[in-house]
Amino acid sequence: MKKIEVNTKERKYTIHLGCGALNEAAAVVDELCKSKSVFIITDSGVPERWVDALAEQLGKPPVFVFEQGEASKNIEIYGEILAWLAEQKATRKSLVVALGGGVTGDMAGFAAATYMRGIEYVNIPTTSLSQIDSSVGGKTAIDHGGIKNIVGAFHQPSAVIVDPEVLGTLSERERNNGLVEAVKAGLIGDGELFELFEHDDYMDHIEEIIERALLVKKRIVEEDEHESNLRKVLNFGHTFGHAYESYFGGRYLHGECVAMDMMTVTEDEEKKTRLSAVLRRLGLPETPEEEADSEKLANLIMNDKKSGRGSVDLVRVREIGTAVIETTGMEEIRKMLK
Amino acid sequence: MKKIEVNTKERKYTIHLGCGALNEAAAVVDELCKSKSVFIITDSGVPERWVDALAEQLGKPPVFVFEQGEASKNIEIYGEILAWLAEQKATRKSLVVALGGGVTGDMAGFAAATYMRGIEYVNIPTTSLSQIDSSVGGKTAIDHGGIKNIVGAFHQPSAVIVDPEVLGTLSERERNNGLVEAVKAGLIGDGELFELFEHDDYMDHIEEIIERALLVKKRIVEEDEHESNLRKVLNFGHTFGHAYESYFGGRYLHGECVAMDMMTVTEDEEKKTRLSAVLRRLGLPETPEEEADSEKLANLIMNDKKSGRGSVDLVRVREIGTAVIETTGMEEIRKMLK
Repeated sequence: MKKIEVNTKERKYTIHLGCGALNEAAAVVDELCKSKSVFIITDSGVPERWVDALAEQLGKPPVFVFEQGEASKNIEIYGEILAWLAEQKATRKSLVVALGGGVTGDMAGFAAATYMRGIEYVNIPTTSLSQIDSSVGGKTAIDHGGIKNIVGAFHQPSAVIVDPEVLGTLSERERNNGLVEAVKAGLIGDGELFELFEHDDYMDHIEEIIERALLVKKRIVEEDEHESNLRKVLNFGHTFGHAYESYFGGRYLHGECVAMDMMTVTEDEEKKTRLSAVLRRLGLPETPEEEADSEKLANLIMNDKKSGRGSVDLVRVREIGTAVIETTGMEEIRKMLK
Repeated sequence: MKKIEVNTKERKYTIHLGCGALNEAAAVVDELCKSKSVFIITDSGVPERWVDALAEQLGKPPVFVFEQGEASKNIEIYGEILAWLAEQKATRKSLVVALGGGVTGDMAGFAAATYMRGIEYVNIPTTSLSQIDSSVGGKTAIDHGGIKNIVGAFHQPSAVIVDPEVLGTLSERERNNGLVEAVKAGLIGDGELFELFEHDDYMDHIEEIIERALLVKKRIVEEDEHESNLRKVLNFGHTFGHAYESYFGGRYLHGECVAMDMMTVTEDEEKKTRLSAVLRRLGLPETPEEEADSEKLANLIMNDKKSGRGSVDLVRVREIGTAVIETTGMEEIRKMLK
């Protein structure tokens, strides 16, 4: 089992990474939670075998299951989780264990951040996207008033357990949707990680891929915990990506939109060719199948909360393995959409 | 104008204290919020003249008004405030200004703590209770699942403005309900503050009373921001106090219950006589008018989230001006209720 130590101002914690890591959850939880007051929060999309494997080890604690999907990431279900914790008499010394994808980590993490003004939680991401992207960073949130992630808290987990074996129950499309975040991590921070995707046997290196992607994110997050500036490089792939996601409303998965964004912002021909080959290998789209209204996309980018007035902090990769942030006028953004 | 600097791990901020301080709100807000994106949150109990005085100075920003009272401190109104902030296009650089009593500070503070994972807020408490008790400490919360303050966050304000002049629009009962917290602060941390209440002209010293009470709380909170132990001395008056509050359901105000608690836990005859004289001067009750079921009260204390199993961390004042925490068995608690 590999251990990655993450140091944030709020706390230090360990990511336990390796095939079979889920079977060691009890050891991790027992060490953290002396009160033995544990609560599992999961969603209906997580295969029962993983829920059972976890609950069994932890002495069958209470389990809260909500409907899978982004639509559940709302204030009503957040309120239900909190009322459930209160009803179950969770105390300040209780521990929440989140088992599921990014939505579950966000919901359970935000509930833990605010129940009794903050209790500890352990995150066990079960999708490639959440294993790579949301297991480091401490960002928790819900959607509200029609805006994604508008309400939330920075709340670091007390431990993260990443078991690549659980990815075996995902469809290939879903799995590769998450792997885009590793491709992204390679592009902005680790050229060798990117190169792993340049061979057909990339899945033989899944543990190394996840580890390297986590190390890129860890390095960036440790240097800039509350997203003042440096951390913005993690938005690579997300400026146009979020716009594509809104525009095509559910037709493309998140990672697929990130893939199309990365192709949109990459100008250099040689890098574009290499990226294109990787995306094809992963079965990911390079451009939208159907032509999109570039004016509408530009407006979506303008309204995205990450953009200032009239310009956008765009992340560019000039050399594979390093990223720069460039304040880019809307004129240029429009040109890129043509 | 007096300035009290409060240092917490999260941030340093200033309490601006003095008669007329409300008129200097614009200077405080302008310095904090370069983006000039300001949002006032207040409740229907705050006299219009104070809301107008504030809004006028700040260039008439959007104002959210909710129904006054503890019943409003719920997840629905919290959600409404957040949706309103989103609708008004509040950004990460916006500033929330809370104008009202403890409920308003709690609601606006928790909304600010979680909107976009935390934006700044300025607290302008308008009741004696909130000026003394909730303007230092950074505790924000809402009630949920039938439990008071069960959901919330530690979020320090960026500034606090305390204007004793606004207390002039409170009834004497309401004003003295809040002053109990200053009596408490004197007992646990400042003997001279307590002595100010031993003379009929105490209201001539209202600014000094508030200042001294704030200094007691500031000292304790700075040493123990996240309520691990020392901060528990601030619970003096609140163990039996919360139980009386639940038991008599609305018949007594919060401060009146704290007054009765302080009489219950004070055993020494000389101190009891002095405290009793102060409470009578403030028109506050010493014991419940109607006999209470001591077994029910004991159960309420047991169920209070501050109590461990079978014993309670009870704060006692052995000498006026210093407090100790004593783990007290339920047997002794029952005896004190007799």
